[in-house]
Amino acid sequence: MPEPHREDAIGAGHGSGPVVFFLSDSTGITAETLGNTLLTQFPGHAFERHTIPFITTEEEAARVVGAVDRAAAGGSRPIVFSTAVNPAIRSILSRCNGHFMDLLGAHVAQLEHALGTPASGEPGKAHGLGDAVRYQLRMMAVEYAIEHDDGQSIRALERAELILIAPSRCGKTPTTMYLALQHGILAANFPLVDEDFTSRSLPEPLRPFAGKCFGLTSQPLRLSQIRQERRPESTYASLAQCTWELRNAEEMYISNRIPYVNSASMSVEEISATILQKMEA
Amino acid sequence: MPEPHREDAIGAGHGSGPVVFFLSDSTGITAETLGNTLLTQFPGHAFERHTIPFITTEEEAARVVGAVDRAAAGGSRPIVFSTAVNPAIRSILSRCNGHFMDLLGAHVAQLEHALGTPASGEPGKAHGLGDAVRYQLRMMAVEYAIEHDDGQSIRALERAELILIAPSRCGKTPTTMYLALQHGILAANFPLVDEDFTSRSLPEPLRPFAGKCFGLTSQPLRLSQIRQERRPESTYASLAQCTWELRNAEEMYISNRIPYVNSASMSVEEISATILQKMEA
Repeated sequence: MPEPHREDAIGAGHGSGPVVFFLSDSTGITAETLGNTLLTQFPGHAFERHTIPFITTEEEAARVVGAVDRAAAGGSRPIVFSTAVNPAIRSILSRCNGHFMDLLGAHVAQLEHALGTPASGEPGKAHGLGDAVRYQLRMMAVEYAIEHDDGQSIRALERAELILIAPSRCGKTPTTMYLALQHGILAANFPLVDEDFTSRSLPEPLRPFAGKCFGLTSQPLRLSQIRQERRPESTYASLAQCTWELRNAEEMYISNRIPYVNSASMSVEEISATILQKMEA
Repeated sequence: MPEPHREDAIGAGHGSGPVVFFLSDSTGITAETLGNTLLTQFPGHAFERHTIPFITTEEEAARVVGAVDRAAAGGSRPIVFSTAVNPAIRSILSRCNGHFMDLLGAHVAQLEHALGTPASGEPGKAHGLGDAVRYQLRMMAVEYAIEHDDGQSIRALERAELILIAPSRCGKTPTTMYLALQHGILAANFPLVDEDFTSRSLPEPLRPFAGKCFGLTSQPLRLSQIRQERRPESTYASLAQCTWELRNAEEMYISNRIPYVNSASMSVEEISATILQKMEA
């Protein structure tokens, strides 16, 4: 669960490190994304994070400044990441007693210069319905991904832009969901089973679509650990079984010229970025 | 599908506006997120976007600079958003013939001052496996969301942190997936059906968990349009049916003190941010 940002709780000692605020007149996603990326550059600190989105009125902005100042009074000056676009709201927030970082301002000026046009100055639509067509694609893709999760349906596989294949528990499902939700990619995923490992050939329903297949592998020990959590002491989770499945899966990918990636030490975001990169190449 | 970034295709006239590069020594997610947020401030332009992630060697960086320069030669100077952290790679990229915007540099310096510690200077782990516990939570949440999508299972509902309820096609599923994948929230979703609308009471399996329920509504016309796409000319999609369902759903939310939001003009990101805000309040 995300940290609470109930104002009276903020900075009330339940965080062990510097208090960080992500402030936005929209969803706060951009503030969190860049802010957290910046914070990863300072691994030594345990930050207490609070996101306050939809700061759309000057009254609300003043209330947020109060919350930041109370947190400042409780300890060291909070770090404040802001993506507020509205000038009036931004100027109110900037007066808080924290290290205020306007994540947009400087870059907007650079862009105005580069593009030779003034910025709209309206709150970010980046995570709204801005591009209705693209948004509908993303929503359709989520439905498609659920319908085609783990080989549940081979209907309309020809519509798939990507078919993820892998032994059980290599990360097919969350990767498929991420690609659908974030990139609107029509992605199916299909489990590899013993007969596939023995024959080292693509599952029959996928053969017409080999060109759209992408494989995942893992590390035997890692995969075995993950499977142990699901079925302790099972053959399914044994190191021997995992080793056998991964070796044959990889040989199958190679012999069928299916691009693949080892997901063992990668996040879904990293796996997805890698897949997109290979799809686009 | 995302734009291809095959170097020889870039800026080759298949884009109608300024060419934009998102460059990263990691996934490129942060560069895309902030970059796209900045671009929404300039709605008048049709940008041709290219993401090039995992620029981890100086050779790769030089190759990317070549691609940017070729695009520049083909028209106006590209806009280049970079989140490269490695100083050597950043300095190579910064020499490209585009409007180079280092999205991290200035803020890192600010943070070093604020925290009194130097930045690690290592490529962003923000979208990696950095926080293993939190990452596992997110992956578990995706499984939970799929298992509990659309009321498919009422098993382990007590584990849910959130139960989204709504008439069909109000956005339950993509919102649940987003909250699971991005925030690691154990979220189930449950459809409301005619008997619920008639009785205006919570579906029986949810009654012990009313405190975890969150409702979605929509606008009758919008909902009817969405349903028409799925089942044209059906009673299900009729404006009368949608109006009836939405009115009774809303009255049920109110009489059961269930917080709710109208999803008609909101994206999953906006709906999710709103839900998180109310959950945290």
